[in-house]
Amino acid sequence: MSNKAIKPAIILVRPQLGENIGKAARAMYNFGLTDLRLVAPRDGWPNPDAGPSAAGAGVVIDEAKVFETVEEAVADCTHVYATTVRERGMPKAVVTPAEAAKQMHGMISSGERPAILFGPERSGMTNDDVALADTILTAPVNPDYGSLNLAQAVILVSYEFFQRGDATPEHQPSHPEGLADKAEIVGLMEHIEGELEQKGYFRSEGRRDSQRRTIRNLIQNAGFSSQEVQTMRGIVKALAKGQKR
Amino acid sequence: MSNKAIKPAIILVRPQLGENIGKAARAMYNFGLTDLRLVAPRDGWPNPDAGPSAAGAGVVIDEAKVFETVEEAVADCTHVYATTVRERGMPKAVVTPAEAAKQMHGMISSGERPAILFGPERSGMTNDDVALADTILTAPVNPDYGSLNLAQAVILVSYEFFQRGDATPEHQPSHPEGLADKAEIVGLMEHIEGELEQKGYFRSEGRRDSQRRTIRNLIQNAGFSSQEVQTMRGIVKALAKGQKR
Repeated sequence: MSNKAIKPAIILVRPQLGENIGKAARAMYNFGLTDLRLVAPRDGWPNPDAGPSAAGAGVVIDEAKVFETVEEAVADCTHVYATTVRERGMPKAVVTPAEAAKQMHGMISSGERPAILFGPERSGMTNDDVALADTILTAPVNPDYGSLNLAQAVILVSYEFFQRGDATPEHQPSHPEGLADKAEIVGLMEHIEGELEQKGYFRSEGRRDSQRRTIRNLIQNAGFSSQEVQTMRGIVKALAKGQKR
Repeated sequence: MSNKAIKPAIILVRPQLGENIGKAARAMYNFGLTDLRLVAPRDGWPNPDAGPSAAGAGVVIDEAKVFETVEEAVADCTHVYATTVRERGMPKAVVTPAEAAKQMHGMISSGERPAILFGPERSGMTNDDVALADTILTAPVNPDYGSLNLAQAVILVSYEFFQRGDATPEHQPSHPEGLADKAEIVGLMEHIEGELEQKGYFRSEGRRDSQRRTIRNLIQNAGFSSQEVQTMRGIVKALAKGQKR
């Protein structure tokens, strides 16, 4: 797995609103990123508007580092991504957040330190900012409405990085204790069939086999656990009983 | 590819703030989702607070459908996901947003209509709401700080769905027109070596070969396009010239 000590640096270039810095901090911290760097924040630093919108991610705000220039902010990093929405026509590779996440985990496991630049809210980064990056990072969006705000861009990049290092299985079964075994399933089938027989459900001898198969497939597909087979047998028993009153 | 007509329904269950409904609409629309459904929104509907925070996604707000109950909201859907953060101890499969996206594309290509339930801002869904779902959808987050808000949860699910249907290559090369061919690269190497020779750079005959290899590897690794080889040759030529003034 990745070198635990290094995490990608999230660098906000000339961010405008303190509130957006707070939201970006919260987005990062949701996915375990803590290295927040600010380049020339418009309203100075610290900014009292950042704390409240960071919610419980105040630690990220408290430890944010401030730099005058992008060059200084990336000085200790080995690979820099620039997030952009529009085509810059620069001779740089363009990657998705998923591909960047994969690359960054590879870099970190080799002891390298990646950083991701995010531009100011309205204007985005200048071409001079982007020229300092190795790679352009762009999330594909609805071509009719590409309007990711700063915190949204930060969350997508952070999320992809976290997912790729996370061991949660993509799919966890509905019954961690396992499904019923086939003896239990067949027991339930036979129980139902027996009761239905008593009730005269199988009226036409010619259709009996096809009716039985329909019921057996339905039970088979239900994916019952042992417990659920017991519940079903209780239901069948209760239904089969004569009227109580 | 997917059936173009069907997109997953995003169902907000008893949402509280109009502003959050607007943000969720914006998050959906960024990734091409438009089927927004509201179950018993606390402050009624329409809500004047929703429009401004939806930014350009007003069309999603305008076409949102309102229902009294979750049962009614999912009536025309074939598979329902419930997004939860905490463990519910219910016998349901639990999937990541990426796995849900994969499943939903499969369902849609078979003409099925999936839906995703998102609970109220503070409390999340009740267990009765969750029991109506087929599958639980949970995004793995920082175990020390899992604090996804409503719009953030909507954006992650919408993003994953969009990515999986999107044809953007994960990695686009820096030089779409292709790299320089080896004749151009070797031409540059020889040009530099020739000029360095003139300037007496290779002082020690014993180290000449190793110095040459260092330079050749460096040029090889740079990944120049034809245009960049020309630029480099211009630089070398300019540097090699005697003082101009």
